[in-house]
Amino acid sequence: MFLNGKLLEEVRKKKPLVHHITNWVTIYDCANVTRAIGALPVMAHAIEEVEEMQAISSALVLNIGTLTTELVESMKLAAKKANAERHPVVLDAVGVGATALRTDKAFELLDSVHIDIVKGNQSEIAKLAGADVLTRGVESSDVEGDMLTLAKKLAEKYGSTVIVTGKHDIVASPKKAFLVKNGHPMLGEFVGTGCMAASILGCFAAVESDHTTASAAALSCYGVAAELAAKEASAPAAFKLKFFDEIHGLEAETVSKMQNVEGLQ
Amino acid sequence: MFLNGKLLEEVRKKKPLVHHITNWVTIYDCANVTRAIGALPVMAHAIEEVEEMQAISSALVLNIGTLTTELVESMKLAAKKANAERHPVVLDAVGVGATALRTDKAFELLDSVHIDIVKGNQSEIAKLAGADVLTRGVESSDVEGDMLTLAKKLAEKYGSTVIVTGKHDIVASPKKAFLVKNGHPMLGEFVGTGCMAASILGCFAAVESDHTTASAAALSCYGVAAELAAKEASAPAAFKLKFFDEIHGLEAETVSKMQNVEGLQ
Amino acid sequence: MFLNGKLLEEVRKKKPLVHHITNWVTIYDCANVTRAIGALPVMAHAIEEVEEMQAISSALVLNIGTLTTELVESMKLAAKKANAERHPVVLDAVGVGATALRTDKAFELLDSVHIDIVKGNQSEIAKLAGADVLTRGVESSDVEGDMLTLAKKLAEKYGSTVIVTGKHDIVASPKKAFLVKNGHPMLGEFVGTGCMAASILGCFAAVESDHTTASAAALSCYGVAAELAAKEASAPAAFKLKFFDEIHGLEAETVSKMQNVEGLQ
Repeated sequence: MFLNGKLLEEVRKKKPLVHHITNWVTIYDCANVTRAIGALPVMAHAIEEVEEMQAISSALVLNIGTLTTELVESMKLAAKKANAERHPVVLDAVGVGATALRTDKAFELLDSVHIDIVKGNQSEIAKLAGADVLTRGVESSDVEGDMLTLAKKLAEKYGSTVIVTGKHDIVASPKKAFLVKNGHPMLGEFVGTGCMAASILGCFAAVESDHTTASAAALSCYGVAAELAAKEASAPAAFKLKFFDEIHGLEAETVSKMQNVEGLQ
Repeated sequence: MFLNGKLLEEVRKKKPLVHHITNWVTIYDCANVTRAIGALPVMAHAIEEVEEMQAISSALVLNIGTLTTELVESMKLAAKKANAERHPVVLDAVGVGATALRTDKAFELLDSVHIDIVKGNQSEIAKLAGADVLTRGVESSDVEGDMLTLAKKLAEKYGSTVIVTGKHDIVASPKKAFLVKNGHPMLGEFVGTGCMAASILGCFAAVESDHTTASAAALSCYGVAAELAAKEASAPAAFKLKFFDEIHGLEAETVSKMQNVEGLQ
Repeated sequence: MFLNGKLLEEVRKKKPLVHHITNWVTIYDCANVTRAIGALPVMAHAIEEVEEMQAISSALVLNIGTLTTELVESMKLAAKKANAERHPVVLDAVGVGATALRTDKAFELLDSVHIDIVKGNQSEIAKLAGADVLTRGVESSDVEGDMLTLAKKLAEKYGSTVIVTGKHDIVASPKKAFLVKNGHPMLGEFVGTGCMAASILGCFAAVESDHTTASAAALSCYGVAAELAAKEASAPAAFKLKFFDEIHGLEAETVSKMQNVEGLQ
């Protein structure tokens, strides 16, 4: 059985400091969702301080949604420190495939530091795995082929946990894989839910060294909170407010009861 | 008769990708309102990728609210690409007249690329049209003279549609003009409603090549949503939440019934 | 007796323009809370325009939450102008002690311009006052020693009003000190409340030249609004919405009735 609720309790008990170098669109929501789940956020991107800030943190969340060359240099420096300190590093590969800069920089990150958890939508992960696809902005186009196969291929190449978001989320490592079925279509009706999921991944990976298990737990908890919020609100802005409060008030027991995660081979 | 509701349906059917190079204060709300109306937002400002991102988008929204020289270079490059691709370009002239940098950069944009829709408050548009006024931050001071005349003058000079926001919004092109009377005073009680209106202008201009008509429709829909939200909430934060959900759920029929737009000569 | 309600009315009457050079996480909330209390926000950080923007403003709020070396240069330039114009300057010393960059830049600001109001949590203020402490990200660790003594020491060194936030907020100048007991634990359950408090300090200092009195009034009003919001909402996101609307609708009479401020020697 999955112990997603137990990991949620660990997050709240340990309150890990999760360092983000992220985009300027959803940066507040990323910080706030980290706080809501029970961890502590810190956002610092100046090249002079990212290593020091990483040293006092417990995880690193990178998001290339509004990347610049300069920002990626800070990401690399922080990630190297995180690798040295054995802090998990999450990369949200926003818009890979949409522009050469994003694709190049994502590979530069993957090739120069160890990324523990790579997250993207179908077209982003397919691009990183070497499949030939087109990304339309930050929205995924339909992608041919078996996403699990692509995710496993990418996971093997970099020794990472790979997450493919969609109606159901695939969580794949070289050795095992899960399908997280928790969630709600309302998460697609406003901006920032993908970015916030990456923050939650950072929180859980900070307290559980099996990052594949931690990722499945994180996405399941996140999805359960969405299901609960959807019972109370039927429009996106009202839903978003309830969603934050459901994350904040989420109980381990509820997660255990509502978790909908399948093992994949 | 105006077909504002029909254009709203077009936005939702075509889901245009609207590229923003905007300010860091309201960037989330701009992205989110684009999503709420039924289009797709993308925010990218790195000089290396703005052209490529523009190429896969359908409109460009520029906002100089927290401009830097570097950011304006990215704006110019993106706008040139938008011009070449015949994507409409919206410029929200935030704070023109308040500092020399803002005034200079707004003129630099107007003189070096084609801006399809220029939007500002009374003092900003007056300044761009050559009238002598003072802007106090982002709030408009009272401006002498006929704003319609100034808007028409500016529209003729640059071949643009010019929008003057206020209690009622003027939409003027060299050939025609409208007064959009939809809206609600509550829009002035919190931060970001002007910036979000520019995003909505981008969404509508992406699906209707008559940008003057598209602008009137966009502002009318936006104002109708505000009127609906004001029926449900009487304080700014509660109103803002309802406003997003009214934009999201806005029906063409409601717009047709509630639109309050006059033709001006 | 304290005249906190009266100062609130002054803010609303004079509607001071409060210039911020702040962090990218909570920048929207800082702008919006300034608007909610009845003042006007402007956010401008380009080195070319900060002096000009300051000249037309009435206060300056600096926040080093996501500082860069470049941004601090803009802060110094704006602060010098503010000093020359006799506009109050507020510094929110976010994360001082967490990294050398933050500590160094905070001292650089304190040593090169006059800061009228310095605000921090216990560990940030202790660090600035020369006590030996560790900051864990933006969250305060427990600090030994009498915070009031440290605050007074810092206040004397720089001729500033010093604010130590916590369960109760200390407001200290070389000559007098207050303990502001208004507030609610819910303010600690979401991101941005410290940053927003600095904005409110800027609004009140803009209308009252006794910055110690102005600070106590600002924090009292802010805390009263929190107490009112907590009566209506028991989860952080719902609370945050109500909090903004309580700030917006706050009446001087309510403040006078609910203010809980003690004089300290």
